[in-house]
Amino acid sequence: MRILGIDPGTAIVGYGVIDVINHRYTVVDYGCIRTAAHMYLPERLDRIYQGMQMLIEKYQPQEMAVEELFFNTNITTGISVGQARGVILLAAQQKDIPIGEYTPLQVKQALVGYGRAEKQQVQYMVKTFLNLTAIPKPDDAADALALAICHSHSRKIG
Amino acid sequence: MRILGIDPGTAIVGYGVIDVINHRYTVVDYGCIRTAAHMYLPERLDRIYQGMQMLIEKYQPQEMAVEELFFNTNITTGISVGQARGVILLAAQQKDIPIGEYTPLQVKQALVGYGRAEKQQVQYMVKTFLNLTAIPKPDDAADALALAICHSHSRKIG
Repeated sequence: MRILGIDPGTAIVGYGVIDVINHRYTVVDYGCIRTAAHMYLPERLDRIYQGMQMLIEKYQPQEMAVEELFFNTNITTGISVGQARGVILLAAQQKDIPIGEYTPLQVKQALVGYGRAEKQQVQYMVKTFLNLTAIPKPDDAADALALAICHSHSRKIG
Repeated sequence: MRILGIDPGTAIVGYGVIDVINHRYTVVDYGCIRTAAHMYLPERLDRIYQGMQMLIEKYQPQEMAVEELFFNTNITTGISVGQARGVILLAAQQKDIPIGEYTPLQVKQALVGYGRAEKQQVQYMVKTFLNLTAIPKPDDAADALALAICHSHSRKIG
């Protein structure tokens, strides 16, 4: 099964594509969709939407995992990430890709077994699970890979 | 000039289409795009996106006005409305429609001349400006018409 993990944002959307076969993980690709801060917001959203369409077209993921926004986010961040998240969910829905949503706490729990784990521990486990020689950069891509791994454990859809 | 006003939301998106010619206003249409609470979020966003595409196709607005989310919204509402707002902005951007964004305070200021005006005063001014026999229902449609009128006064784009 191929899973696309997405860490949503307006400036940087992290993505990570993994294959899971018999509980073994392989990295297919990871990276970021970036938009410049000086760009007009609707253009940034269009760029993110097009980036998502390209990722889906190229990697044909069977399922997607995306970070669930939560309540101790500040309101400006919440609105801004919400807008990006809207066009990300739309791109997946238009291709009928089932979507799992996970809080940072659930991701930490799934990867480290402890909801209050440090970011570094999660990144170390991403490297270990995926058999990589180094921690994936930037953080947004590592977070997206962590979401994909978390999804392969939980398969919480809808 | 034809303006499409949009009051974003996940359950109800209010819309209002007006023509402004020589400072005279005509209502073209108003109403709501509704999505059911039991629907899967990505489907609701897709429904809103398709509804926006249909409105743009049918009425060919030259400009769009949309409510700007602001800081005393609560975080759950902010994230939720943000997601809907993302797909709304995307639909307009894909048709190169210039978008003006206005806070509720700016709308009140433009219609009533007073930023702390009551909702009823704004609705009364919508009825008066547009020469209607009654206040448009539901509130979301009246708010969308108010946004379109506010935009015709301000033309604040980008």
